[in-house]
Amino acid sequence: MRLNHYLLNSLRKIAGNLKLTVIVVGIALSFWAANFAFVQDVWAKEMPAIGKVRIWPTNNTIFLVNQRFDLRIENTIPAKTAPTLQALTINGKDYTKEFQQQIAKQLALPGGKLEVGLPADPNLFGQSWRNFTFEQPGSYEVIATLKADNISVIAKNTYKVQRFELTGEVNKIILAIGDGMGNPLRTAGRIMAYGFQDGKSKAHLSMESMTELGLVSTSSLDSIIPDSANTAIALTSGAKTINGSLGAFPDNTPSNPLDNPRIETLPQYMKRLYGWGIGFATTAFGVDATPASTFANLVSRRQYDAIAQQLLDYFEDGYSLPKTGFKGLAELSQPVDVALAPGARYFLPKSKIADFKDKVSRKDDKNLVEIAKGKGYSIATDVDTLLAAPNNKPLLGLFLGDFRPKSALGAQNIPSVLDIMIARGKATIDGRGAESLKPPIPKEFAKIPTLPEMTKKAISVLNTVSPKGWILLVESSQTDKLAHSIDTDRVLYEVLTLDKSVAIAREFAQQDGKTLVLVTSDHAQGQTVAGTVDTLAIKEKRVDLKDALHAFENAGFPTYSDLDNNGYPDEANPNIKLVLGVSARPAFRTNFLTDDLNLNPSVENDGSTVNPEREPDGLLLTADLERKETIANHTADDVVLNAEGPGSALFRGYLDNVEVFQRMAAAISGAKERAELPKLLE
Amino acid sequence: MRLNHYLLNSLRKIAGNLKLTVIVVGIALSFWAANFAFVQDVWAKEMPAIGKVRIWPTNNTIFLVNQRFDLRIENTIPAKTAPTLQALTINGKDYTKEFQQQIAKQLALPGGKLEVGLPADPNLFGQSWRNFTFEQPGSYEVIATLKADNISVIAKNTYKVQRFELTGEVNKIILAIGDGMGNPLRTAGRIMAYGFQDGKSKAHLSMESMTELGLVSTSSLDSIIPDSANTAIALTSGAKTINGSLGAFPDNTPSNPLDNPRIETLPQYMKRLYGWGIGFATTAFGVDATPASTFANLVSRRQYDAIAQQLLDYFEDGYSLPKTGFKGLAELSQPVDVALAPGARYFLPKSKIADFKDKVSRKDDKNLVEIAKGKGYSIATDVDTLLAAPNNKPLLGLFLGDFRPKSALGAQNIPSVLDIMIARGKATIDGRGAESLKPPIPKEFAKIPTLPEMTKKAISVLNTVSPKGWILLVESSQTDKLAHSIDTDRVLYEVLTLDKSVAIAREFAQQDGKTLVLVTSDHAQGQTVAGTVDTLAIKEKRVDLKDALHAFENAGFPTYSDLDNNGYPDEANPNIKLVLGVSARPAFRTNFLTDDLNLNPSVENDGSTVNPEREPDGLLLTADLERKETIANHTADDVVLNAEGPGSALFRGYLDNVEVFQRMAAAISGAKERAELPKLLE
Repeated sequence: MRLNHYLLNSLRKIAGNLKLTVIVVGIALSFWAANFAFVQDVWAKEMPAIGKVRIWPTNNTIFLVNQRFDLRIENTIPAKTAPTLQALTINGKDYTKEFQQQIAKQLALPGGKLEVGLPADPNLFGQSWRNFTFEQPGSYEVIATLKADNISVIAKNTYKVQRFELTGEVNKIILAIGDGMGNPLRTAGRIMAYGFQDGKSKAHLSMESMTELGLVSTSSLDSIIPDSANTAIALTSGAKTINGSLGAFPDNTPSNPLDNPRIETLPQYMKRLYGWGIGFATTAFGVDATPASTFANLVSRRQYDAIAQQLLDYFEDGYSLPKTGFKGLAELSQPVDVALAPGARYFLPKSKIADFKDKVSRKDDKNLVEIAKGKGYSIATDVDTLLAAPNNKPLLGLFLGDFRPKSALGAQNIPSVLDIMIARGKATIDGRGAESLKPPIPKEFAKIPTLPEMTKKAISVLNTVSPKGWILLVESSQTDKLAHSIDTDRVLYEVLTLDKSVAIAREFAQQDGKTLVLVTSDHAQGQTVAGTVDTLAIKEKRVDLKDALHAFENAGFPTYSDLDNNGYPDEANPNIKLVLGVSARPAFRTNFLTDDLNLNPSVENDGSTVNPEREPDGLLLTADLERKETIANHTADDVVLNAEGPGSALFRGYLDNVEVFQRMAAAISGAKERAELPKLLE
Repeated sequence: MRLNHYLLNSLRKIAGNLKLTVIVVGIALSFWAANFAFVQDVWAKEMPAIGKVRIWPTNNTIFLVNQRFDLRIENTIPAKTAPTLQALTINGKDYTKEFQQQIAKQLALPGGKLEVGLPADPNLFGQSWRNFTFEQPGSYEVIATLKADNISVIAKNTYKVQRFELTGEVNKIILAIGDGMGNPLRTAGRIMAYGFQDGKSKAHLSMESMTELGLVSTSSLDSIIPDSANTAIALTSGAKTINGSLGAFPDNTPSNPLDNPRIETLPQYMKRLYGWGIGFATTAFGVDATPASTFANLVSRRQYDAIAQQLLDYFEDGYSLPKTGFKGLAELSQPVDVALAPGARYFLPKSKIADFKDKVSRKDDKNLVEIAKGKGYSIATDVDTLLAAPNNKPLLGLFLGDFRPKSALGAQNIPSVLDIMIARGKATIDGRGAESLKPPIPKEFAKIPTLPEMTKKAISVLNTVSPKGWILLVESSQTDKLAHSIDTDRVLYEVLTLDKSVAIAREFAQQDGKTLVLVTSDHAQGQTVAGTVDTLAIKEKRVDLKDALHAFENAGFPTYSDLDNNGYPDEANPNIKLVLGVSARPAFRTNFLTDDLNLNPSVENDGSTVNPEREPDGLLLTADLERKETIANHTADDVVLNAEGPGSALFRGYLDNVEVFQRMAAAISGAKERAELPKLLE
């Protein structure tokens, strides 16, 4: 409301400057203005208000032919009398009756209010035509007129629809996402993995060796600074939405996050229409925003128990779902074929959760693992059962997380690959192995699969259960989560684990010939490659921490080594170590050394006060962000995209994240060059 | 020495692990190892040491055919007896005698010691064959053997030589550099200039609309964190060198920065062999690192008076040049045809410098402006004389800098374009114009040319005086300098002034058809697009500064406007303003508002102590860098490159900065695709 207030003032000022005479004659033209606000606001205080009139999905979305979405018309402020739909036209043709008939049909279903998305306040209008589609490519102008208090208000959205056909050029897509992995993390990962000769990097990361390069803008519908839900869903559905939303848009019924207007994702679309498989492999819990972007449709990413049900396409009486089920939701939903992740707490009742060393469990106490088994899934719980799982059955992997008390990651997220490597005897911190750390690294960590191990298995299973084609999302989640808690050393190990997963994907793709591989990030964080520290000098207290971080020629070159040649540096604290600068951050202390256990940087609810348990003798870095932000944050920086395989040239250059969706679909449709894209819209 | 010590230890360890038996039989094989150090170090303490034996230029450099460089052989630690050159072979053929004859010839010149680069210590060997060239493309293995104390030590460098021919495909190159302009500055500039609609940027910057996109790595020969000298010279000469060096390499005669082994830049090469013109337009003083990368050859960027002489190809008795002149230097040097910049202090004697409101002048008190006039240059001193200058004569522009006392930029650098726009009545800070600021903006600022104005004139003159072709470097310097002093609001205005210059370059190029336009950065700084602040709330003290910087959906969208449509926001503090996060920084205070005058962030010699005069009530952001760094610093992050015009596809994808040089030459040679590049090396 604050933003709108300023906008209102500035629009008034502009209107004044331009000496506009505003004549309101019953019909006030309203249209989307910049910054997610209606020009109608200008008149909001001068006339009987029914608030904004909005049409969802977001204006200027480009859909695929037959892509499902909920066409919603609503106003945002209760009128004095009940608003009515006066007219709905699409490209000039009247659809008012069809809309009303469809709404009546939905209302007649059990739980009809949910099916329509009816607001609680009778003086708010809000109705969603569920699972609407445009069947022909081209441009569509949707105009809706609401009438209340003797005033008619018009809203107009313009959409385009992209031609789609299955050409066989591409029948598999592997979308690898480094969550929060900005451009500097790639530079740093390269430096860490390969080092320098004669001032040049000795090699590039696997992702950097891909044929095509793009830069992706990531802002959301409501802010320059996005979260991971709206960005991931922009990549998979092609629609901009607000922070926190997954395949859905805000509406005027805030009480139920499941009844919002929604949009079908590309994996759902391909599965519904062409029988493709859907898979993901991630180090985050499988119902977290990024993996959920393949299959979830709801406005709140935090409804994890509900998302777990969507993952299995299971709509019996579950937590936060009404007893009726939800026909509109069930019709859009598609079960995931391969889901490899931690996060058992969203699948298991209290009685079972101790198996995963967790204490949180499903609020409805249902056992979704049993449901999954009933639907034919095999279940994997560690690297051994993962590798042993049959390739010819859908696969649900639920792995241990970082269950050490006080770990910033928590039991719902896979530990850093550094900690897994330490558990496997493949890495050390200051020369110390798993048992010498404080706290020691649990033995069980050695059996937690790494992202490359998950990626390889996911490809094998999808390739067997979904011979028609499939889409696999591979997410390195901890590039983001460990950056939130400012453990930048571990973040860099996560870049390498993503890169090893990409190498596996590329190797498969090169043999396959019909696989498009994309590597990008949903958004960046506030990191840069700032310099190096001499860890020996720090440990031996030969340097004041105020003089520890070296810049310019003092920085020299880091001394990582990987003598066991497994792709990860053997020692987290090499003598000369890379250090990332961090802005958009809470206060924290750092001694520039890798901690045994990653703790939160600041105290709860006050980002300006450091966590007293974390490196109490460390250098104090004060917060730049507002105090309620207690972890380091996302930024608006463009992120890098790499592409390889058929159609990869479509991803060259500058893209908005929604265009990644459009071009994946174009690649499946056989397009090869950007010049072909406009023709797909005719 | 610290680095070498560690390397020594780790190499010893590796050698121990591999159970190597090291047999020293009079000849110790030595070769370049990673990280700028010799494996010979392993034995350094066990044998009579003569230090490293090195060959310059840098190992693995790719030259152009006939590109001049100084081939130097030297050792780094004095032996007990005078070392001798035992053998020099190139691809197995003995060149010992030729080398010795050439050295004798150079020694016979007046000032022979300088001509050879002879070390002061007779027990150091150091000799440079000046202006050496390879005349055929291909691979070259240069092996030198030095003998001292009855020990022979071998050094080996491998070079490649790229075929070059003038095909006429490209006869002009405009290389635009946003100094220190990392990827986030481009995102931020776009947001500031164009804003959003429906969650998407309304438009892209001109540089982002170019056809090709690359990412450039920027590290130097001695550090991951580069300075602006080595990076610019890498772009223009194709050779990696150490921080602070311009077209030259370190040597064992540290006393004289002019006698070091050097390398010819592409502009020098094109002028010498093909009569092309050389030009630059920059907001930094014209002898600063980036503009000097077109014409300077010396190991220390801070020899500004000497660099000014190189700019004019003037080698009479000048400051830091011996009375003899320096034949080797003079033979490599080429005068610049169009030099547009501030920095009169390096061209004028004390008696004249008051004209430029400066207090610093040439140490030798020479008047280089008179020299320039004698050589046929016309002189411009403000935007009027610039525009009025004839197009058919070489042009030296020397403009006023930010001469306000305490300005962090100083009288040798053009003020921020924001301040020029305020002086011209085209922008405000909190609604205040030039006379209302504290201190007021001097009237003279209105007549200082902006970078787009300089760019346009530079093109006109070069196109007249150099009909055969030309290379123009356009530098937005203050994207770096104002970032050093953490004035991020003004930095973003500088991004826009570069972009307007790029638009002018592109417009010319599109009409011309034979112009290659490149836009990149020499390196990044530690900035990210962190969020927004509500400037009204700050000014009205409605918000604690600890809660001022908003993240996620609280950030919303900035409210810049450009009602006069001149490409720059009208108000530096719009209600909702973009804020950059800054890491790799000294301590500073910020109230997130644009200051009237940019002051240094911290006190002299202690980056952990804030400048008490700067925003004393601001939020304290503590330093992450070592205390001797009193300004924000460079980072190692890859930077973006945009290319357009003939040959631009050569710049697609990942490049090291030295490859930009190679591909500019390849484009002139008519290459169109990266696949053609290997053929140029045969």
